[in-house]
Order: sequence, then structure tokens, then C-alpha cells
Amino acid sequence: MLRLASRHLQSASVVNKAPVRGFATAFNWEDPLAASELYTEEELAIQDTARQYCQEQLQPRVLEAYRNEDYDRKILEEMGELGLLGASIEGYGCAGVSTVASGLITKEVERVDSGYRSGMSVQSSLAMTAIHDFGSQELKDRLLPGLAKGKLAGCFGLTEPNHGSDPGSMETVAREHPTKKGYFLLSGAKTWITNSPISDILIVWAKLESTGKIRGFAVERDQCPPGTLETPAIKNKTALRASITGMIQLDDCPVPVENMFPEVEGLTGPFTCLNSARLGIAFGAMGALEDCLDRARTYALERKQFKGNPLAKYQLVQKKLADAATDAAYGTLAATQVARLKDAGKSTPEMISMIKRQNCDRALANSRILQEVFGGNATSDEYHIGRHVANLFVVQTYEGQSDIHGLILGRAITGVQAFV
Amino acid sequence: MLRLASRHLQSASVVNKAPVRGFATAFNWEDPLAASELYTEEELAIQDTARQYCQEQLQPRVLEAYRNEDYDRKILEEMGELGLLGASIEGYGCAGVSTVASGLITKEVERVDSGYRSGMSVQSSLAMTAIHDFGSQELKDRLLPGLAKGKLAGCFGLTEPNHGSDPGSMETVAREHPTKKGYFLLSGAKTWITNSPISDILIVWAKLESTGKIRGFAVERDQCPPGTLETPAIKNKTALRASITGMIQLDDCPVPVENMFPEVEGLTGPFTCLNSARLGIAFGAMGALEDCLDRARTYALERKQFKGNPLAKYQLVQKKLADAATDAAYGTLAATQVARLKDAGKSTPEMISMIKRQNCDRALANSRILQEVFGGNATSDEYHIGRHVANLFVVQTYEGQSDIHGLILGRAITGVQAFV
Amino acid sequence: MLRLASRHLQSASVVNKAPVRGFATAFNWEDPLAASELYTEEELAIQDTARQYCQEQLQPRVLEAYRNEDYDRKILEEMGELGLLGASIEGYGCAGVSTVASGLITKEVERVDSGYRSGMSVQSSLAMTAIHDFGSQELKDRLLPGLAKGKLAGCFGLTEPNHGSDPGSMETVAREHPTKKGYFLLSGAKTWITNSPISDILIVWAKLESTGKIRGFAVERDQCPPGTLETPAIKNKTALRASITGMIQLDDCPVPVENMFPEVEGLTGPFTCLNSARLGIAFGAMGALEDCLDRARTYALERKQFKGNPLAKYQLVQKKLADAATDAAYGTLAATQVARLKDAGKSTPEMISMIKRQNCDRALANSRILQEVFGGNATSDEYHIGRHVANLFVVQTYEGQSDIHGLILGRAITGVQAFV
Amino acid sequence: MLRLASRHLQSASVVNKAPVRGFATAFNWEDPLAASELYTEEELAIQDTARQYCQEQLQPRVLEAYRNEDYDRKILEEMGELGLLGASIEGYGCAGVSTVASGLITKEVERVDSGYRSGMSVQSSLAMTAIHDFGSQELKDRLLPGLAKGKLAGCFGLTEPNHGSDPGSMETVAREHPTKKGYFLLSGAKTWITNSPISDILIVWAKLESTGKIRGFAVERDQCPPGTLETPAIKNKTALRASITGMIQLDDCPVPVENMFPEVEGLTGPFTCLNSARLGIAFGAMGALEDCLDRARTYALERKQFKGNPLAKYQLVQKKLADAATDAAYGTLAATQVARLKDAGKSTPEMISMIKRQNCDRALANSRILQEVFGGNATSDEYHIGRHVANLFVVQTYEGQSDIHGLILGRAITGVQAFV
Repeated sequence: MLRLASRHLQSASVVNKAPVRGFATAFNWEDPLAASELYTEEELAIQDTARQYCQEQLQPRVLEAYRNEDYDRKILEEMGELGLLGASIEGYGCAGVSTVASGLITKEVERVDSGYRSGMSVQSSLAMTAIHDFGSQELKDRLLPGLAKGKLAGCFGLTEPNHGSDPGSMETVAREHPTKKGYFLLSGAKTWITNSPISDILIVWAKLESTGKIRGFAVERDQCPPGTLETPAIKNKTALRASITGMIQLDDCPVPVENMFPEVEGLTGPFTCLNSARLGIAFGAMGALEDCLDRARTYALERKQFKGNPLAKYQLVQKKLADAATDAAYGTLAATQVARLKDAGKSTPEMISMIKRQNCDRALANSRILQEVFGGNATSDEYHIGRHVANLFVVQTYEGQSDIHGLILGRAITGVQAFV
Repeated sequence: MLRLASRHLQSASVVNKAPVRGFATAFNWEDPLAASELYTEEELAIQDTARQYCQEQLQPRVLEAYRNEDYDRKILEEMGELGLLGASIEGYGCAGVSTVASGLITKEVERVDSGYRSGMSVQSSLAMTAIHDFGSQELKDRLLPGLAKGKLAGCFGLTEPNHGSDPGSMETVAREHPTKKGYFLLSGAKTWITNSPISDILIVWAKLESTGKIRGFAVERDQCPPGTLETPAIKNKTALRASITGMIQLDDCPVPVENMFPEVEGLTGPFTCLNSARLGIAFGAMGALEDCLDRARTYALERKQFKGNPLAKYQLVQKKLADAATDAAYGTLAATQVARLKDAGKSTPEMISMIKRQNCDRALANSRILQEVFGGNATSDEYHIGRHVANLFVVQTYEGQSDIHGLILGRAITGVQAFV
Repeated sequence: MLRLASRHLQSASVVNKAPVRGFATAFNWEDPLAASELYTEEELAIQDTARQYCQEQLQPRVLEAYRNEDYDRKILEEMGELGLLGASIEGYGCAGVSTVASGLITKEVERVDSGYRSGMSVQSSLAMTAIHDFGSQELKDRLLPGLAKGKLAGCFGLTEPNHGSDPGSMETVAREHPTKKGYFLLSGAKTWITNSPISDILIVWAKLESTGKIRGFAVERDQCPPGTLETPAIKNKTALRASITGMIQLDDCPVPVENMFPEVEGLTGPFTCLNSARLGIAFGAMGALEDCLDRARTYALERKQFKGNPLAKYQLVQKKLADAATDAAYGTLAATQVARLKDAGKSTPEMISMIKRQNCDRALANSRILQEVFGGNATSDEYHIGRHVANLFVVQTYEGQSDIHGLILGRAITGVQAFV
Repeated sequence: MLRLASRHLQSASVVNKAPVRGFATAFNWEDPLAASELYTEEELAIQDTARQYCQEQLQPRVLEAYRNEDYDRKILEEMGELGLLGASIEGYGCAGVSTVASGLITKEVERVDSGYRSGMSVQSSLAMTAIHDFGSQELKDRLLPGLAKGKLAGCFGLTEPNHGSDPGSMETVAREHPTKKGYFLLSGAKTWITNSPISDILIVWAKLESTGKIRGFAVERDQCPPGTLETPAIKNKTALRASITGMIQLDDCPVPVENMFPEVEGLTGPFTCLNSARLGIAFGAMGALEDCLDRARTYALERKQFKGNPLAKYQLVQKKLADAATDAAYGTLAATQVARLKDAGKSTPEMISMIKRQNCDRALANSRILQEVFGGNATSDEYHIGRHVANLFVVQTYEGQSDIHGLILGRAITGVQAFV
């Protein structure tokens, strides 16, 4: 169960943010198309809880974290404490909320920082979803509660140095242990893996040597002999610096057969998890965009140029704000629709490609345009806009670059593939 | 009541268009985000009826109509017969359907042609809404049934030659008849008035000489003495050629006080009507865009270039299709949301500005990009794409040009106006 | 020799257009980057002559011509009289001017209408260049003088109904006459051929049956037996309606071997001609864009909205004008550079792909944005902007659609082809 | 005189970059429109020298400099040694090269990093130009040689915390010293001043208390009493981190009247300097863009995805490369044209607004699109693209944000101002 913040408390703390939720006689620029009308009271309360936590606990940390590439491991525990991890999973100590509620949590975290959202998404949508959907009952019972609480950290190893958009060509291999029965030896390298340096549980996708088929493994770090698993951090990133990213290097790392996902084979497994994460990204990117809009609007109202007029008075500035508000509103509606369809068993992967692509594209494009409102001051990280802009480029790129999702949609529309 | 087509019949006639409406296991490129899940069975049936009529009765006429600028007056009667006119009005022989259903009708008509939709919108959202919302009971009883049936044609005179985006500066004036008590004399000129040359009932907005306030009048052509009302057609239009457009020239035209809307004053009256029409346009533009997408997709699958590959095989073509499908899906969701909010009494004019602007902008931009798929063949009017492209420019422009709606949104977001 | 207009006359007639050509102390919005500084006195004089003819003789005819799809055959003679046809060819009654001068002529004609420019380009760059570069001396002596004078009209048959961007797959065939020695029989169909219905000399590219190689033929209409050559006009075009376009239908049409271009084989021949035409288009499109800018600027200065301000006072309008002026200036410089390189023997086809693509793309995009300045009035053809917008789509598309030239450039940059 | 690198040496060191400079039979993707044909042998040699220095001496330092916000003061001396500082100035130990040559130097520096170019531009175009154009002969003789050698570092204080785009509203004031005759006291704050923390000579623009007019002062740090001049560095910048930026805080700082520029008053002075710098930026931004293109092209050729195809094989990738190459070529031609006009005394400030705006806009837009080619790897700073993207946003913004230059152009085109 998700621990809800008291509505009273919330209203007090972010009072000037609270959208009007009753009879909408007035236009609310923060929710221009009244998406909140589509949410249940419980979903709105969950969003409030998440927003309160994010604004009060994450926002004050993000500047230093980003400057120093210093992710605070405690955040996972805090999120776990509030029930934000694996929130849409039933049981195992998870909150079991709707996909919409889960998306709204994601949106609130990314309103602060895409890196913080990435850390949460990897834990929830990738690692926990993989174990929940594909792991044995024993694995679920043993690992999910710790992951849900944030006591254990998880990551998801799919991408390899030479295989980004085309994971089917992966080179990581799992072969039967030549001597130790019931064990596989995993070898290979994964890269750009959020959370890998701090992860206790590493979901690794590898080709089974005997079949050539891709299988999933839950690698437990504390079970790996020295020298078989390394997870060096990647430093000097140009974005997502408030999250921690690394490689996974496996050198004949022994993993018991019980930790292999028993049923799923091929790319179905990773793609299921990615679809869950991508749906979250579609919500999350709208949170980042809304924060950019909020900050640009505030700046435009406070900054005076030319005879004391606020920037907000200028047509060219208003156009930027109007465009961004429109895309944020449209993207939120679309993500909400697909989340509802998912809970009704009616979503398809192509829908998720569509909203992941479009919401990321629009968030990125608009954040860049809003950045112009700040003029030279955007160069100061204290205005936060530069961080969002840099982050959103990666968000557009990871879990399916915009062009790749475009070709997925193109194939779905025409029946003809154009990848090669 | 709306006369529904048999679902069976419909399915037969446009069988390969019918979206999957049950459990959506498969992606449907014609409704990528399953907006149909948001509609009631009745609303879907109304859409089917409208589509059947439009595809069977309007589509075959549009090419010649557009070539020759020849609007068939009988279309209004056909629409009236089916209950498509003033469809969301209760009583007076109107269908009394939901705003969503009304929007879906609009979408089906504009799927054929924006001009046909313009003719219907002017009749329904502008002329009938004006009389219904602001006219005396006597006017409603006397005029609405004929307009609903299409026996009477209506138009809406707001725009003047020198006052487009700024109707508050209108010059048309209504002064008390110097001798004939209970009459006003209207003088002035309106331009770009859809339907004016064929209209029996002309809604005219004019400034009352005595107060300087804008008032609305239902001018009945058959009551106007010779020489007091002229409605010359505007010919050689570059777009919307399947609709008829003209001026309204009033020269001391006598109108009885009973034909003045009794309560409404200022721009509230015309803006109420325009909001209704703009909501329809937000749906309609998505219909035109969907038709462009459908045609471009078909062309891309059939046209072979370079070693026999269909154009649909090329990445640059797939991107165009994917972008258009995305914008059509997003725009349809947004229009549906605002229509639902309207029926719940929760919509605001700014919401309508947002969806009118965005859906028109995206329909226009995507139609132009899809036009590229046809190469030189787009120059043949038989591919229909050039007609949609030309039409959609006007659709983006009328009833609030994109920039104007952007400034309305900018004002709503910032609280500062930037019009002057 | 080109017949120059008196500079005095010219200055008088278009006085408010004349760019400042001395010491440029003031910014000239019509030539913002002072491209005129790159031209010789003779080139400027030729431009003046062309502009005077175009503004005085073509501009008054274009509205009716476009409305009625009625190309005045006499225009070719008028152009021939002034020396505008095949202007860069030496001898044969041609003016023998520089490629820059030839480009400036093209720009002036397209300032009026892309269709008029198309008619001239086909005559000059395609038909005359083909004969000049590839025909036998006898053909040149016999045909070029008449074409130069506009007494003969020419066209260029390359595109076929099923082969637009990929002419190498053409199906038109030339086989040796089974009985009449020294003759070929041509069979096949060409489409979208500017001037074909009025042409006396039709350049036709066909595959030689015996070799499978593409060869060029100068088909003389008056030598074709009845039924072997038909050139039906294509009507109801959505653009370029002031030019005449048609098909070429050949049914065992006998052509003497002397009319086959003796040396050139494969696509070298047509591509040489196309490169010449494309260079002209790169200039021409800038002329059309400049006319759009000029008209939008005038409209924006004259049209008042909101408290009597001219549209020109609004930031959103100024941005449109500034963007268009910039692209026109950049495109003119680039075309001038390539023209100079051509005369120095240093141009390459990829350069021409670059400027044809970019100048057409930018002319089209900006003309559409400038169209917004006119609001609803753009729908009146008397403002001319809608005509330019419609034309420029075709100009972007023909002689290499933008994406095709993009792939030509991509191949040149990477060394890898991506056409299939 | 500029110290030229031996052409031989240069050719050896960057051999695979050398554009073909003879008869251009082949397309050169690095100089697609053969701008090099417009340059003299001397100018090309200067470019070679600059490129050699930049690639050999600056490129290896930039990664660490950017990571650590650590500008190496020695760079100015190295540049001075080569004659790159104030290169277009005659005398005073400056090279006295053409404006084109100066622009080519700028382009080569920014090919490495916009921050390095900023440091050089501030020294050359702002500080040295100010002294050269407006300082007394004594000031020139005393300060220019040291600045030219890079022994002295200079900066330019115009922008204030509350006055960015509108410097005319500056608050910094110069009042006559109440007791010390022949001295002014300067008070106020300047911000976002490149080089200020390391500058020996600080050009400061302030309003003369007695007249209210803006005047310029050369403040010599070693003459300022303690506490009257502070130049704290601004840290944690989101871009241009390889340059050093700071504030200038003046608190009754005494400056002798001889250090005030004697003749110039108002914004003429700063704008003259800014025009010089902006012209350099127009070249420089093209250098950064060309580097992005070069890196993206190389990455696309080396990176294989989907059946072993290089990314360069994909249409969507080729389009990105083609677009960028086109904009780089066009922008280089335009900058060259204005530089030539400047040397001929025929340039205007609006021309410079046009090329500064357009080249920065296009460099930024294309760099962002090219960043997509790198996918997730763009997040590694070792690919350099993220740095260029972040830098180019600031380059677009400083010395006149894109919208401001757009309004300058709009005013020049229409004669109507739209700033307020």
C-alpha cells in the first residue's frame, strides 16, 4: 500500500501549484486540458504524495548531485519507504496501484530530474518487472520485497557497447558451467546501465550458448566470486549526472540455473520490461517539460527588459510558453490514455512507441525553446533549465531512439519494415 | 433524433476502414491510441452514419465542386435529412447528441473536404448556435426547424474587410429606423462569409449606434427590400473551393427589433458561437489529416521506385507517416477531452483555443509533409492531397489564426496580454 | 546578344525596387547581403532588362493564365525576342551570357510565376542544352536558332508515369525500324512534361532496344506521321497552372538516326541538362520567395489590426519577415557561388543538388509562413501568395525531390548510398 | 605579421582534412560549395596555421578544461605568439590581416571549442577593438602591444545583471572624483563577462553621471586600489566551461580621465565592438558545426547496427548529415560575403545581425540533430558532441539573442520597431 501524504499538508506546502480540481470555471495553465478530470481521487492523492516528496526531498539535493555526479543511494530507500518502487505490482510489499498512478509518480520524480526518474524506473519497471513477470516464484519471493523497499538496488543489462538500437545482436553469452552442475557462466559486457555500480541485483540478458536464444538472469552481486563481475561507473557524463551509470562486465560469472527466468526466450522478455519503462518515460518527460514551463514562465514574469516590461509581455516569449503548454497537455492526455488501455489489457507496444517517441521529442524540443527565455542566465545551473535540456536529450535517446520508434510505427502503419 | 445507418450496412461499405472495436490486441494504424474506446456505442454509430454518407455522397462530388467552385445547395438538405445539422442542439428537430458525437460528425465531413465541413459548421455552430443560445423563443421556434432540416441556409457575419483578428473594431452599425418604429437599419460590409450567397438567414453582428455595443441580428433575406442586402460570391479562391463564400453588404437594411438577440451584448455572443465552431474544427482538421495519411499510405504502398521497392519501404517516407499518425491520434484525444469537458460544463475558451490552434497547425504541417510522398503526382487533383493542403491553410487561419490563439494562450498562462 | 533595356527606362519604371548599388551605407532589405556586389555591370543590366519585361509583360497576365490554365504561347517569342532563351549558349543566335546572368534572368521570371519560369527553363536548360551539348552540328544549326527565337517550342521527355525519381528504369524504347533504314521507332509514354502540348521539338530519352542503353532523340513533331505522337495536356493541376504540362505518347514513332544524339549514352545526357535546369531553379526559387516577402511586407505595413497598429508592428510578423529575408539572401549567395564555379569549370553535380534542394526547401517553407501574414485574405488569388505557395511545392518536387537530393548529398558525404 | 605555418608541415599533419584547392573536379564534403575558392592564398595559409595550432595545441586540452572549468591562461600567450589576437588590426604588433582571414582564424578556434573562441574574441574583437577604435593614441600605444601578444588579458564589461538585451538601461555609473582631479569613480556590476577574472585590462561601459551618456573606460587592474574592483568567477556553468567567465564589481573604482575613450558616446562604442565580435561568431559557429558534422560522419561510418550496416547507410542519418553540411556551407558563404563587404566599407550592422543570428541558429539546430546520430554515446563527453551542443546554445544567445536580432532585422525590413 502506498503511504499517502495528508492532502491538507500537501496543499499547504505547494499551495500555489495545486491545480483547481473542482468545477473548472477557470483555465488552469498547469493543467490546460484538465487531465486531472481523468484521474480518480486515489490517483490524485498518490500524485500529491509523490510531488510532496519530490519537491521537499529531491529538489534540494539535485543541484549538487548533478554537479558532482553523485547519486545518493538513500533515495531508493526513501522511495521504497513511500511505496513508490514497483508501485503497480500487486503483492511483495508493493503498492499495487493503477498504471496511471504509477505514471503520475514517474511524472513527479522527473519534474525534479530525469536522472532521479531513471534510477527509479530502472528499479521498478526494468528490474522488478523482469523478476515479477518472468522470474520463478522463489525469485519473486526472495528479491521483490527488498527491491520494493529499496533495501536492494537493481539494474537491467541489455545494451552492449556495440549493440544499442539492435539488442538482438548481443554478444553476451551464457554457457553451462563445465564442472559445476546447475550453473551457467556469463561473459560479456553491458554499458550505459543505470544503477549498475550500486546494484545488488543485476538483470542480465545473454544468449544461451546451446540454443543461441536470449535468456534473462538475475545476477546477485553478493554471490559472484571476485573478478567475475565488475560494474565500473561511467563518469563525466554530459547529462543525467544525478543518476549513476556504469558498465556490467562479466567474466565467466557463475549464476545458478534458478536465477534464469524459466519461460521467456528471445526479446520478448526485455521488450516487456522496456514497454513498461517507456510508458513511464512518456509520463516522466511531461513532468520535466512542465517544470521547464513553470520556470520559464516565472522567469519571464520577473525579468524586465526594455522600458520595464516583463519578458512575458513579448509575443515571441508568449508563443514559446503557449507551444510548450500545449505539448505538455497533449502528451499527458496521450500517456493517460495508454495507461488506461494497459490496465484494460488493450494497449499494444506500438502505442507505447508512439507516446514514448512523441512525448520525448516534444519535451526535448520545447525545453530547448524555453531555454531561450532565460537568455544568458540559462548558463547558470541554478536556473535548472540547462539540466533539463541536457537530460531530455538522453531521455529521447534511451529505451528506443526517436528514429527507431518512428520506424517501428512506420512498420506498423505500412506493414513494411525499413530498418535495413 | 439522428437517423442511424445500419451498422451492418456500414461495415459492408467501408469494410477495410472499420477500426477494430473489441479487445484491441492489434495496433490499428487508423486509430493508433484507440480513441474509439472513449466513445459510446451511440457515438460510434453516429460516426458510422456520418462516414457512410460522406464517403458515399460527398466524396464523389468533391472533385468537380472544387474545380468549378460549385457548392451544391442540396448538401445542406441531405445533411439535414440525416440529422447532422445543429446535431448537439436539443429540440427544434435537432438530434440532441453529445458534443463528442457532434465532433465525430464534423470529423467525417472534413475527411472529405474542409469546405463541406465549413458549410456545415457555419450552419450548425454559428448560425443555429447563435439563434439557439441568444435568440428569442419566437425566433428559435420559427427558424431553427428549417435550419435543422437544411431547408433554410444560414451564415454568420462577423469579419469585416478591415477587421479580421480584431472584430471588436467592427464598423457595421445598426441605428434605429428614423421613421419605422421597432426597426433597425443595418449598414456595413462583412467579408469571407461562408454560405452568404445562398443564405436565407444571415446572422449579422453590428454596433448599436445608440450604445456603441455589439449586438446580433438575424437578418431574413426574404424580408429585405431590394438594394438593402447584397451577398456577392467571392470567386477564384485558392482554397475551400467546394464551399461557397461571399460578402454581406448592408445598406440601410431594415430589421425588426424582434430579430435582434435580446440579451447578449459585446463580443460574448459571437465568441460563444465561435467557440462552438472551433471545437468542431479541432475534430474536423483531424479528419482531413487522417484522409491525407490514408491516401499517402496507399500511394506509398502502391508506388514503386528503385528496384521495385514500394515508397513505403523508405525510412524517409515512414517517418512522414509515423509523424502524421501521431499528431492525428494526439489531436483526436485532445478534442475528445475538451468535448467531454464541455458537456460536463467544465470547458473554457482557452482550452478551445489550444485545440483549435494545435490541431489545425499539426494538420496543416503534416498534410504538407505527406504531400511530398506523392512527388509530382500531387499536382494532379485526382490524388486529393493538394486540395487538403490548400484547404487546411485556411482552416488554420479562420476563426482565429494560429498566432492569435497563441497570444490568447500566452495571456492565459502569464496574465499579461501581448496583442498590442 | 541580349537586348538590354535602357537603364534609364528601367530605373523609372521600377524605381522603388532599385537596390542601392553604389556605396552601401544603408541596409537594403531587398538585397540584405548585397549579392549585387558580386555581379558585373553587364549582369545587373541583364537582370534589369529581365525584370522590366517580367513586371511589365508577364505580371499582368499571370492571374488569368493561372485561373484558366491558359499558357500564352507568345511568351516564348517575346522571351526569344529579348534574348532570354538559352541565354548562356554561345552562338546560334543566343546571348552567350554568364551562368550568373542566366540565373538572374531565371530569378526575375520566377519572381512573377514559377510556371512561366518552368516554360522558359524547359526550353532553355533542357531542350536547347540537350541539343547544344549532345546534338550533331547539323541539328544545332537547324534547330537552335528557332528555339532561341521562340519560334520553335521545345520540351524534354524523361519522366515516365511509373518512373519519377528513378529514370534509369524507364520503359520507353527505341528500336531500329524493321524496314526503313536509318530510322528508329520510338514507343512509350512520358508524363508531367512542361510544354509538351505546344512543342515543335521534343527531346525524348529512350532505351535503345539493341543495347539497353539510354539514348536521346530530338523528335520533330512535323515529321511524325499521324497517330505516332500524341501530347495531351494535363488539366486541373493544383499548381503551375500558368504553364502548360502534358504527356508524350509515342507509338512506333519514326525518328531518323540523325536526330539521335550521337555520343552520349546512359543518364549522363539527361543529368547534364537537369543540372543546368536545377541551377536555374536555385536562382528562380529565390525570385519567387523575394516576391512573397515583398508582398507580405507591403501587406503587413498596410493592414492595421488592434488599435490601428500595422501588422508589421507585431513581433510574430517581424520574425516571419526576418526569416524569409535571411533565407532569400543566403540562397542567392549560394546560387551565385555555384554559377561562378560553373563558369570556371569547378562546379559539381552535388553542389547543384545542394542548392536546388536547399533553395527550394527554404522558398517553400518561407512562402508558407509568409502566407500566414495575409490571414484569410490569402484565400484571394489577387494577393498572389497562394499561387506562389502552390507553385513552390512543385518546384521543390520536380527535377529531384528534396529527399532524393538529400540522399545524393548523403552519398557524397559518406560514400555510402541509401537509395535502396 | 602573422606567423604562418609551413604549408608543407600543415599538409602532413592534417592531411586527410585538406580540401582540394585546385581544379575542383570532385565534390569535397568538407567545403561543399567551395568557399575556399573565395579566399586568397594568404588567407588559406592563415587558416592552415590556425587549424594546425588549434588541432595540435587546443584540442588535446579541451576535455579536461571543460570538465573542470579550467581555462589555461597560457592560451592567450600562445595565440599572441602566433599573431591570432587582434589579427585584423594594423600596427601595434598585430597581424593586420583581412577580415576574412580573421574570420577563418575564429572558425578554426571554434572548431575546437566555442569557449576558446570566446576567450579569443573578447580579447580581440571587444577589448582590443574598443581601444583601437576609440582609445587615445597613448592608450593604444601603451596597451595594444601587450594585448596583441597575450601578455595582457582583456575583457569587455557591458552586460549587467538586470540588463541583457537592453544595455541602454545600464546602471553602472561614472562620476567625477570628488577630490582627485582628473579621475572618475566607477560603480556598478557587470556579469557574464568572459575573461574578467583573469583580465588585466577591463573595458567598462558606464553612464557618466553628469550627462547620463554611456562612455567607455579602460580599467587597469593593477591601478585599482584594493576593494574597488572585484572579478569573481562564475562557476558551475552549463556550457562554455573551457572559458572563464565572471562578474566585474566596481565600488568607487578610480579611473583616470585619460582612460576614458575620448570621442565616443552612447551605444555606438559598444555596438561597434559587438559588430566586430558578432562577425567573428558568424564564422566561428560554422567551425563548431563543421566539427559536429565531421564527428557525426565518422561515427556513422564506424558504428554498425542491424545486420552490420554502418549508420551512414540509413536514410534518416544521411538526411541529418546532408542538412548540416548544407547549412555549414551556406553560413560560411554568407559570413565570407559580409567580411569582404566590411573590408570594402560596405557592410552594415543589420547584415551582421543577419549572419550572427542565422549561423548561430543553424549551428545550434544542426548540432542537436547530429547529436542524435551518436545515440546514447553522446552522453560520453569523449565524443565531444554534447559539449558543442551545450556551447552553441550560449553562442546563439550572447551578443544578441536570436529573437533580438530577428527584431533588429524586422525593424530594418519594415521601418517599424517591435521591441516594446
